[in-house]
Amino acid sequence: MAKGEQIGHPETSMENAVNESAFQDQYPDDYAHCYGCGRLNPRGLHLTSFWDGEETVCRFTPGSHYSGGFPGFLYGGMIASLIDCHGAGTAAAAKARQDGQSISRFVTASLKVDYLAPTPINKELEVRGKVVEIKGRKVTVDLWVIAAGTTCAKGTVLYVQLKGQE
Amino acid sequence: MAKGEQIGHPETSMENAVNESAFQDQYPDDYAHCYGCGRLNPRGLHLTSFWDGEETVCRFTPGSHYSGGFPGFLYGGMIASLIDCHGAGTAAAAKARQDGQSISRFVTASLKVDYLAPTPINKELEVRGKVVEIKGRKVTVDLWVIAAGTTCAKGTVLYVQLKGQE
Repeated sequence: MAKGEQIGHPETSMENAVNESAFQDQYPDDYAHCYGCGRLNPRGLHLTSFWDGEETVCRFTPGSHYSGGFPGFLYGGMIASLIDCHGAGTAAAAKARQDGQSISRFVTASLKVDYLAPTPINKELEVRGKVVEIKGRKVTVDLWVIAAGTTCAKGTVLYVQLKGQE
Repeated sequence: MAKGEQIGHPETSMENAVNESAFQDQYPDDYAHCYGCGRLNPRGLHLTSFWDGEETVCRFTPGSHYSGGFPGFLYGGMIASLIDCHGAGTAAAAKARQDGQSISRFVTASLKVDYLAPTPINKELEVRGKVVEIKGRKVTVDLWVIAAGTTCAKGTVLYVQLKGQE
């Protein structure tokens, strides 16, 4: 690309999405029915996660009906769901990459979310993930929910790889 | 009731529900649109919470489409949502009872959930809450998600009363 040429879409992970399948698209069929991120759940949210350098990213625009206790903003449970599902995908992808294997399924052992600022509805949210530690079947992930540059929530989640999927 | 007479319904909080309105039914109209527990959200889950002695209780039966990463069980985001919404109601009710005022609205500052056992779908879950501390506008609540006597998840959540509602 020539210097100074305008970049059509600054969201690099969306560029990646053209070439890479989402982590969730690589889950084994039996483990792809999660309401948050299962590609085989017809009523689910169908969250998708991708690598973006050493971090991971998931984008989602929650509709008005997902409002929370404070008028015009997202409900806390959805924020936890975004963090949880994107983090599980991040854990699975990082473990797969380290081990040189295909993606397996992780479940949540513990989740901590700090709500830092009201999170908007009807605007695209970016959920970013970064692996803190991989220790055997356990993976810890830090996560951030960002709206137009503002970090609205920060999460830390511990996942465990399901037995029989190592 | 005569000794030995069979109790028709052992769920005492459901008995209470006949006589008491849910905490969420007492939220101010502008703050009653939460997807999880807002009575005015037409597409929401309409969770309702009640006193049960010194604890609080909320009952909910999640449908099959709320499945999680592990086949046949509830997704983690819903478990966090149940804990978050019931805890917010518990914080509001406890603060109102202490201050002798009507119920106001609390929002979540931080949430911690430990997932202890797979949580079933299509079975009634009991979410129980117990206030740990009330300190000014801040209320900390411990919560448990129980299925047929098994504690599937344990939460601790810090809530803050919205300004202007004291």
